[in-house]
Amino acid sequence: MKKIPIIFDCDPGHDDAIALVMALAREDWDIKAITTVGGNNTIKNVTENALRILEVTGRTDIPVASGMEGPFLKELVQTGKFHGKSGMDGHHLPDPVTKAASDDAVGLMAKILEESDEPVTLIITGVFTNVAVLLLAYPHLKSKISKISIMGGSYYRGNWSPIAEFNVWADPEAADVVMRAGIPFDMYGLDVTHQAYLKREEYAELRTYNNPVADFIADLFDFFSKSCIEDRGHPGCLVHDACAVAGLIDPSLFRYIDTHVQMDMDGDITRGGCVVELRPKGWPRDDEVNSKVAVWVDRIGFMKLLLDSCAYFGKKEV
Amino acid sequence: MKKIPIIFDCDPGHDDAIALVMALAREDWDIKAITTVGGNNTIKNVTENALRILEVTGRTDIPVASGMEGPFLKELVQTGKFHGKSGMDGHHLPDPVTKAASDDAVGLMAKILEESDEPVTLIITGVFTNVAVLLLAYPHLKSKISKISIMGGSYYRGNWSPIAEFNVWADPEAADVVMRAGIPFDMYGLDVTHQAYLKREEYAELRTYNNPVADFIADLFDFFSKSCIEDRGHPGCLVHDACAVAGLIDPSLFRYIDTHVQMDMDGDITRGGCVVELRPKGWPRDDEVNSKVAVWVDRIGFMKLLLDSCAYFGKKEV
Amino acid sequence: MKKIPIIFDCDPGHDDAIALVMALAREDWDIKAITTVGGNNTIKNVTENALRILEVTGRTDIPVASGMEGPFLKELVQTGKFHGKSGMDGHHLPDPVTKAASDDAVGLMAKILEESDEPVTLIITGVFTNVAVLLLAYPHLKSKISKISIMGGSYYRGNWSPIAEFNVWADPEAADVVMRAGIPFDMYGLDVTHQAYLKREEYAELRTYNNPVADFIADLFDFFSKSCIEDRGHPGCLVHDACAVAGLIDPSLFRYIDTHVQMDMDGDITRGGCVVELRPKGWPRDDEVNSKVAVWVDRIGFMKLLLDSCAYFGKKEV
Amino acid sequence: MKKIPIIFDCDPGHDDAIALVMALAREDWDIKAITTVGGNNTIKNVTENALRILEVTGRTDIPVASGMEGPFLKELVQTGKFHGKSGMDGHHLPDPVTKAASDDAVGLMAKILEESDEPVTLIITGVFTNVAVLLLAYPHLKSKISKISIMGGSYYRGNWSPIAEFNVWADPEAADVVMRAGIPFDMYGLDVTHQAYLKREEYAELRTYNNPVADFIADLFDFFSKSCIEDRGHPGCLVHDACAVAGLIDPSLFRYIDTHVQMDMDGDITRGGCVVELRPKGWPRDDEVNSKVAVWVDRIGFMKLLLDSCAYFGKKEV
Repeated sequence: MKKIPIIFDCDPGHDDAIALVMALAREDWDIKAITTVGGNNTIKNVTENALRILEVTGRTDIPVASGMEGPFLKELVQTGKFHGKSGMDGHHLPDPVTKAASDDAVGLMAKILEESDEPVTLIITGVFTNVAVLLLAYPHLKSKISKISIMGGSYYRGNWSPIAEFNVWADPEAADVVMRAGIPFDMYGLDVTHQAYLKREEYAELRTYNNPVADFIADLFDFFSKSCIEDRGHPGCLVHDACAVAGLIDPSLFRYIDTHVQMDMDGDITRGGCVVELRPKGWPRDDEVNSKVAVWVDRIGFMKLLLDSCAYFGKKEV
Repeated sequence: MKKIPIIFDCDPGHDDAIALVMALAREDWDIKAITTVGGNNTIKNVTENALRILEVTGRTDIPVASGMEGPFLKELVQTGKFHGKSGMDGHHLPDPVTKAASDDAVGLMAKILEESDEPVTLIITGVFTNVAVLLLAYPHLKSKISKISIMGGSYYRGNWSPIAEFNVWADPEAADVVMRAGIPFDMYGLDVTHQAYLKREEYAELRTYNNPVADFIADLFDFFSKSCIEDRGHPGCLVHDACAVAGLIDPSLFRYIDTHVQMDMDGDITRGGCVVELRPKGWPRDDEVNSKVAVWVDRIGFMKLLLDSCAYFGKKEV
Repeated sequence: MKKIPIIFDCDPGHDDAIALVMALAREDWDIKAITTVGGNNTIKNVTENALRILEVTGRTDIPVASGMEGPFLKELVQTGKFHGKSGMDGHHLPDPVTKAASDDAVGLMAKILEESDEPVTLIITGVFTNVAVLLLAYPHLKSKISKISIMGGSYYRGNWSPIAEFNVWADPEAADVVMRAGIPFDMYGLDVTHQAYLKREEYAELRTYNNPVADFIADLFDFFSKSCIEDRGHPGCLVHDACAVAGLIDPSLFRYIDTHVQMDMDGDITRGGCVVELRPKGWPRDDEVNSKVAVWVDRIGFMKLLLDSCAYFGKKEV
Repeated sequence: MKKIPIIFDCDPGHDDAIALVMALAREDWDIKAITTVGGNNTIKNVTENALRILEVTGRTDIPVASGMEGPFLKELVQTGKFHGKSGMDGHHLPDPVTKAASDDAVGLMAKILEESDEPVTLIITGVFTNVAVLLLAYPHLKSKISKISIMGGSYYRGNWSPIAEFNVWADPEAADVVMRAGIPFDMYGLDVTHQAYLKREEYAELRTYNNPVADFIADLFDFFSKSCIEDRGHPGCLVHDACAVAGLIDPSLFRYIDTHVQMDMDGDITRGGCVVELRPKGWPRDDEVNSKVAVWVDRIGFMKLLLDSCAYFGKKEV
């Protein structure tokens, strides 16, 4: 059976890490590369975090390339304390022994697309800078991308400003380039990711799996639960980025609306916000629909998929 | 018993009319003036509509003053077809025989506040231009306003743009002046007004009251049902403006959050949107809270209050 | 002979003071009121400065009214050190013994316009807030204003930002209301006021006039020369505000272009800048011309007019 | 003698063509590539125009690569009638027989920089999109660029809006990327290019040179004189883009100021304008200086250099 070719662009990050583990558990996916971008933390740290994840999952065959250090037009702002000093605090993994294959993430993505016989799926769980530069520098490769699954944006409220979510806020011009590229994208914004949480008693099960990947993910949950549950009062640990992977694996876990999404780039207080058209009938016009926006998730199904992905690494030979 | 002094600023409009009728049915309210503003329709038409409402309810003792023709900094954009050519199409009332007491709404509001022994409550169901000019031209009168109950804004989606509601969008600088004036305001945005509808079979009861006010309101519902129910697919007729009156009469019909609300005035696609802080814990800080934002309405209770208000005019001598 | 009715709106300020003295020396002008606005300094200080100027010139018959404390939509930013702590440091005048006739500058302006048989000329040498509120609150009085002579804006460079001049930058929304009011205005921006300076040896002559007004003005020049000549390297003391008076007295001292002027209110780095159309032929269209913009001044003629105005107070009975 | 390595990025265009001819006449320059960008006209047309110029000058050894079709974030707006239908109307050259070496201008620029032993000089006489994408996609190559000489911007007035010049206005985000890249740039804005014109009797001399390049340039002047002299009333034909070449050849023809230049990207009426710091002493701080901005040109010296460049092609073997 033909595997689905994937490029995974990220800035791990606790929830990026969980999303990556879910992707790495898919035997029907062919992950061509993991590319990193400055966002949650410095490009150096997020790249090392990506390497650690490949080492613990035994998938060092996948090349990692680091990319853009910061956004197009503004300075990089990191998420700071939410992910800790390393960008992925809380785990017990050693420093990575492998190295990034390249520091030209955009070039690697271009090469993969150029050489691929069939269109590739892109997953973005970090700031959109890498993919935007790819689309600007290699416009003829747009046709080689079948779709983009993104964690980013929101239509109800933000996390980084009253209306803006971090991944799109951190480089709004890059998000705009991606959203207007003419490539269909599935959007998992805060509206749905706030429904995609695991309660303490749910992720506790990971400790019973007796495999190092599940232990690693449990470590991340333990760390992340402080800001999610204690500081913010959420009912569990939110796993934002994992939605962009879960929806690709099993779209039936989500409900979507087909609509028009665009970035606000110039508002004094709205800059970096993502504007999703939610008005009834007639808005947007059919020819303006550019996205499937997830509005609801089957939380229990999502949780089971996440736990099963971790369990997988105990069953296979690593 | 002391009556509550009120100034009602509006641009009738079907839902303004229903809101006015609900206010006029309150025997414990002392409506000092009805002031009109260019918004849903021209200042001439909305003023005549206000006079008609006072005539049909037998309350021509209340002075009407017309005010600002258009917004501060931009041209007036009317709501057009939603309210018909007159701004309040569908009823069978004759042309008004009374006249506006003045064309200086701002001056009349200032005079009422100046002369009032106690703070006055303001209701705004139209564009915010009149009240903003009042606050700018007479800053010392802010202390004479106890609170402002407004229909406007939203936090989930807009009606005039993907994120902006008409009353604040039409004059965002005026809305900004009002929101930053230091006067507490209750905000009934689209999020709650979209829950405040009457189904066809519910408002049909008005025809059985056998009083001209109820018939007038039923006429309005019949007209409005076309755009609400047929064109837009809502489950009933939305009565946006009536929420700002219903909440003053009986706050227990609504659930509110105390938060910070501000206007976006410069975004290319977000201009005129109202930004409501919805992030958890720590946002906004206590000293930034400027509004009670209604988030839920007891629809059945709201409907009964509306119907009772119309029934009232059949029981009293008009 | 009929005198020209004038309202003088200002925030003294060294150059406001010189402008006022030039105006008070005109026997053919009927100055109906001096209104003050928060700008160069607090409303309290600029009002006291205006009273001092009337006392030293013996014109306490002219009513002073204080007005808006700060701008429409933003916080007041004062010019700080340029005018010293009092806003008009350097002189030897005592505290004023007279008092402002009112703290409702806008109301006084409206009353004067309402009662005037003929159109009144407005001079604005401060932030535009008072006049903007007047135009918003009393739109029917626009026809009673024959023209507005303003110091503000620029087309070449700014002083408060790379492109913005203080008087318009400090309340851009107010400047916009004034510029779009449909009332013709003469604009004396930095482009021409930077040509309107007196060298040290030129204003030194004031000390020979042996009159208290000339001495007061000489004091102001001595103070102002520090920031103008020593700190900034100008060839003399700039007397920005005096241009708006000099041009009314003798337009032949200036060269003007008829063009379109508008405010930028939303640029991240251009907010508060004034955009003057300077493109050739076809821009702007005739129907868009709203201003005569001064582009050149006869510096020697300007200097003589200024000195003569000060000399006047030694010749007349004060 | 070592030649100066150059990459010339342009969108010919009459004045681009003249600028190119001046560059091609330099025996001490090594022009590595001519790259084209959608701007004055479509990418197809400007690329064909570049090929024609190389053919008429006998320099088909220089590779041409076409690049970005339009700006980062907005739609391409062409200059239309000013350059005619082809973007370079008025000449008698046949269709080009040569072809572009590549449609990946950004890739070619990157390759040249990568392979160059010494830093390369960039000339930009078109919209900044190509160079911005280069800098984004290959940030490590910034150190291989010694300086950038650009035609664009202004500080006094614009041509495409009251304050914006076309080359920067057409893709302000790209201009911003270039200006903030940390690479020194010389800026020839409208302020100086409006001084760089040839009168009819001056460029008429080209017809006496009896060489096809001079005739081609004379054709361009004849066409361009209509819009410059007849329609706009300039004293001669403006040759904007040629300034960016002339200043590299002989900086003594110009006077410059060292200052800070930035783009306005979000103003409603100022978007695309270039903000040049012109305030005296203290603005900008030394560490903010990013540009040498040309403020004056020796028009006669400029004219002679231009004519000599055309004469050159009659003396050499083509």
